[in-house]
Amino acid sequence: MSNLTSTDFSALKKIIPPRRPGYGLQRPYYHEESLYRAEMEVIWRGGWLFAGHSCQIPNVGDYFLYEIDGDSVIIVRQDDGSVRAIYNVCRHRGSVICEAAEGHVKRFICPYHQWTYDRDGRLLLWRGMQEGLDKSELGLHQAHAREVEGMIFISLAKEPMDFEAAYETIAPVVRPQGLARAKVAKIMDFDIHANWKLVWENNRECYHCNVNHPQYIKANFDHYNSDDLIDRVAEQLATVTARSEAKWAAQGLAVTRTEAGLTEFPDPEHNVWYSANRTPLTDGFVSESLDGKQVAPLMGDYTDPDVGTVRVRMLPNFWHHSSCDHGVSVRLTPNGLYHTDVRMIWLVDEKAEEGQDYNLEKLLPFWLMTAEQDWEICVNQQRGVNSHAYTAGPLSTIKEYNLDRFLRWYEQQMAPALR
Amino acid sequence: MSNLTSTDFSALKKIIPPRRPGYGLQRPYYHEESLYRAEMEVIWRGGWLFAGHSCQIPNVGDYFLYEIDGDSVIIVRQDDGSVRAIYNVCRHRGSVICEAAEGHVKRFICPYHQWTYDRDGRLLLWRGMQEGLDKSELGLHQAHAREVEGMIFISLAKEPMDFEAAYETIAPVVRPQGLARAKVAKIMDFDIHANWKLVWENNRECYHCNVNHPQYIKANFDHYNSDDLIDRVAEQLATVTARSEAKWAAQGLAVTRTEAGLTEFPDPEHNVWYSANRTPLTDGFVSESLDGKQVAPLMGDYTDPDVGTVRVRMLPNFWHHSSCDHGVSVRLTPNGLYHTDVRMIWLVDEKAEEGQDYNLEKLLPFWLMTAEQDWEICVNQQRGVNSHAYTAGPLSTIKEYNLDRFLRWYEQQMAPALR
Amino acid sequence: MSNLTSTDFSALKKIIPPRRPGYGLQRPYYHEESLYRAEMEVIWRGGWLFAGHSCQIPNVGDYFLYEIDGDSVIIVRQDDGSVRAIYNVCRHRGSVICEAAEGHVKRFICPYHQWTYDRDGRLLLWRGMQEGLDKSELGLHQAHAREVEGMIFISLAKEPMDFEAAYETIAPVVRPQGLARAKVAKIMDFDIHANWKLVWENNRECYHCNVNHPQYIKANFDHYNSDDLIDRVAEQLATVTARSEAKWAAQGLAVTRTEAGLTEFPDPEHNVWYSANRTPLTDGFVSESLDGKQVAPLMGDYTDPDVGTVRVRMLPNFWHHSSCDHGVSVRLTPNGLYHTDVRMIWLVDEKAEEGQDYNLEKLLPFWLMTAEQDWEICVNQQRGVNSHAYTAGPLSTIKEYNLDRFLRWYEQQMAPALR
Repeated sequence: MSNLTSTDFSALKKIIPPRRPGYGLQRPYYHEESLYRAEMEVIWRGGWLFAGHSCQIPNVGDYFLYEIDGDSVIIVRQDDGSVRAIYNVCRHRGSVICEAAEGHVKRFICPYHQWTYDRDGRLLLWRGMQEGLDKSELGLHQAHAREVEGMIFISLAKEPMDFEAAYETIAPVVRPQGLARAKVAKIMDFDIHANWKLVWENNRECYHCNVNHPQYIKANFDHYNSDDLIDRVAEQLATVTARSEAKWAAQGLAVTRTEAGLTEFPDPEHNVWYSANRTPLTDGFVSESLDGKQVAPLMGDYTDPDVGTVRVRMLPNFWHHSSCDHGVSVRLTPNGLYHTDVRMIWLVDEKAEEGQDYNLEKLLPFWLMTAEQDWEICVNQQRGVNSHAYTAGPLSTIKEYNLDRFLRWYEQQMAPALR
Repeated sequence: MSNLTSTDFSALKKIIPPRRPGYGLQRPYYHEESLYRAEMEVIWRGGWLFAGHSCQIPNVGDYFLYEIDGDSVIIVRQDDGSVRAIYNVCRHRGSVICEAAEGHVKRFICPYHQWTYDRDGRLLLWRGMQEGLDKSELGLHQAHAREVEGMIFISLAKEPMDFEAAYETIAPVVRPQGLARAKVAKIMDFDIHANWKLVWENNRECYHCNVNHPQYIKANFDHYNSDDLIDRVAEQLATVTARSEAKWAAQGLAVTRTEAGLTEFPDPEHNVWYSANRTPLTDGFVSESLDGKQVAPLMGDYTDPDVGTVRVRMLPNFWHHSSCDHGVSVRLTPNGLYHTDVRMIWLVDEKAEEGQDYNLEKLLPFWLMTAEQDWEICVNQQRGVNSHAYTAGPLSTIKEYNLDRFLRWYEQQMAPALR
Repeated sequence: MSNLTSTDFSALKKIIPPRRPGYGLQRPYYHEESLYRAEMEVIWRGGWLFAGHSCQIPNVGDYFLYEIDGDSVIIVRQDDGSVRAIYNVCRHRGSVICEAAEGHVKRFICPYHQWTYDRDGRLLLWRGMQEGLDKSELGLHQAHAREVEGMIFISLAKEPMDFEAAYETIAPVVRPQGLARAKVAKIMDFDIHANWKLVWENNRECYHCNVNHPQYIKANFDHYNSDDLIDRVAEQLATVTARSEAKWAAQGLAVTRTEAGLTEFPDPEHNVWYSANRTPLTDGFVSESLDGKQVAPLMGDYTDPDVGTVRVRMLPNFWHHSSCDHGVSVRLTPNGLYHTDVRMIWLVDEKAEEGQDYNLEKLLPFWLMTAEQDWEICVNQQRGVNSHAYTAGPLSTIKEYNLDRFLRWYEQQMAPALR
């Protein structure tokens, strides 16, 4: 239902200065309501958004709501097994139809006057309406939905952006993880008092990891950059990589990231807003858990725990880490200029039983601690960029190359509104 | 104190599209702050508002406050028994004079510097002020007040609209109910997270009643429309009406609504923003109570419980239902674009004693349940019309004729600002 | 970091009417967000602000934060004993550096990426940054700071206003009080639901004192004005003054206010935004305490309790009262159009021990009660000026001459934005 052309953004050009190359964003980028509105229309209503996981709605008629930018979207399993994204707004007087955040429906029945829609959104019944109206024109409004290997993405755009390249990049990497045969172990929601861009800026560099993420850096290589990749670590990485590549090839596992430092992402010059790869963990770690040990049964096609980690990223609202035994998804949803709602979803194999095959005390801490460390950072940065004294500083070309990529992507996306 | 001409509403015309005839209002009607501001100035500060009941201030000097749109208005009983509506703002430095929501005053004494005003608002004393100022020019600002058979209405307009036609319609219908000889049994306040227009839209149709108001529909005929007025019901209505008309005529009771469906109201083409009538209850009901039995002593002039119900409605903020034994008033007060404060007042005969002649467990549920059912509906509708996907739908000409009347009245009122 | 010229205030002139001479401010002065923004830029970011007391940061490296208008400022004791006001914003990505409201630092280390600054704000270390950047250009942004006899003032202006005249007025009056050798006995914070101007308007007249401040008026003469300075009081004042002047001269104590009524302040025609004097207390009072008795050991240079009270006032955010034994400072900080944060700080001699030399039950009530009486007044006035019916009233030339001075000062300050 996005309608980019209807909004007049001409005033924005006067208040939003161009970014100085190699530097962060200036203060107005974090403070202008009208820019936030433009971001919602251009980036958030223009792009593809992660809504949730297939295993949240395993059966026909299962649904959950995704609430974003004032809209409530029903993500619902269809009779043919596919997924639809249907606006939770009755075509009669506009009431929401599904009040609960998740549930099961045979048909959608509006609680106000009982207009009744099929699971696919077609209007079936409207007791009390006069002759002469065309029922076929009054089905529920629909967004676009794509289900990819256990992940559900939606687009609110009238004409959604092409998804094929993203699909081809992500699907083969994720497929062996078996997210479509997973179950939700835990969902946690956070309200971060920070602009959504600050959350991404934080995600796109590991410059802050050494001091802020003591758990994360034990398991991973990607906080090493050219300036601190000492010989011992480089050797370990080479050894682990060589071993991994051989084993993974034998298992038919796909693409591999074999270097230190964060994968280059996004690629604003080639319009690449999605990424997926498999990368080794450090010696002794088979899972992103506090002690590196497996914390749940193997997932998907895996027969051996030594599969490194799968990472998926998709702008503007999703990233995901999987180990052999569990996966963690992070979904961002802006909630005004100064708030970002974050949902974290932990997945394990669908047959795993809590208390028997896994327990949350072992499963959650690695990513929960890492995430909460980041949320505190983001809140501190929001406090600082609130200041009239804030001036954008230089980015490290060694450690913040991906942050610069993110900002270039952002500028490229927003160019129609800003330049 | 309203000052319509001072506000420039020209920008509104660009953002508020005309309504498609026969359809609901479009999204901007529920989302534009500047439209809300215009509604306050045109409709709320231009019209007559129900403030409360005479029996809330039985004695000279009794007062209660009505807080609306930033203004605090003192509704106070004068020495001659009349009622005044006086702005609760000292003419010196602007402090509120009455801090408590209700009470009793001999004179109005500002707590800041003790400027002292008579009960009618005239400035009497101002210790410490210099010579040369004219005390007679500094009385408290006044709104307009009308007391009608136990109901108090005020207007914030400089030149209030004519009230006579409203008076002539309402007074004779309400008079036998004896609201002026009533007492307050209960006051309840609600903060409804919905635009005030949604609350009226809900009030102006009973299309939603069958499913949402299981208590209400047992007592009333007005949820039956031409499409569902089955023979059995029509017969019952005819029987009850015939019997009632005869009895009521004998008692000198006024106008009667004898048809099913909601009374046509408002009448935008003839500028009719008020309505009152008496209508039969269903067989076996003498009161709008859960079991239809009397729940308090007879009120007013009644000598027999079979008097049906009296209904009064007045745009933009009041409706009232009375049975033989009690009355219920509903007062709406917008509190920003997305909130409506609602006060409900239950009245019984002034001589009735709680615990002896009535108890709240029997008195309240019928309207309390019906009201809370409606508040939930309104909140759901607000959630839905928040969506960018909301599009106004067609109204039922069979069941929502009064809603269309309300919207036409609204458009007519707002025409000076919108067209 | 203030940047007055960048903001376009031309729209303000249309919505903010000139004040009628001798009257209060009209409604828009208390309701226009854009005026609030202009006040912040012109008055608050242009002037000198009281931040806190020297004794809050006695040792090198001690700091406290002053949060104002979105900015967080670190007030920190330097190695040479001086005080700096440093913006709490990392020059890299803008995170706040000090998270806690007060503490001690060896160096400032940003929690995000550990950029490290010396106590004076110079950038020392930035692990991970590339060659070719100039570290000397990336020190922490600084505000201006002045320490005056135990009081710390800051200015956020690029080019701060001259402070010398203020210094020369205040320092000699305050010096004997020994605030630099004091300790904090209590800090209390209040959120007053009132515009900051209403708080000053309240402070600038004692017309309200007789009824509202039963404690305050027992100790002081300044609520007497020409209309109520009866002979008995005038005589007492003359007696007390004659006695005081002689004693104070012998002790070398400075300037004396010897008349009843509030000291004339500010002086808008001569740009005087600061004031200090010493004035007698009533007979029997040696301290602003409930019973007039001393409530803590003598402070500073005093050898005798009969030193009257010292008063300091500085626009836009500070006033202070000291007796022989304790001092009370009040710091205002606007927090949006409708809120003012107030901090009260009670000081006693640095060697005084709580429980032994003083107790809070005796020390606090006089000013705590007086302050809370005023906050209630301010909230009531805000409620009233919210009303559309509010119209500015005439000021008493006998009792509100200082309020008129305050409004003239305000108008003079805001003239560049308003006229």
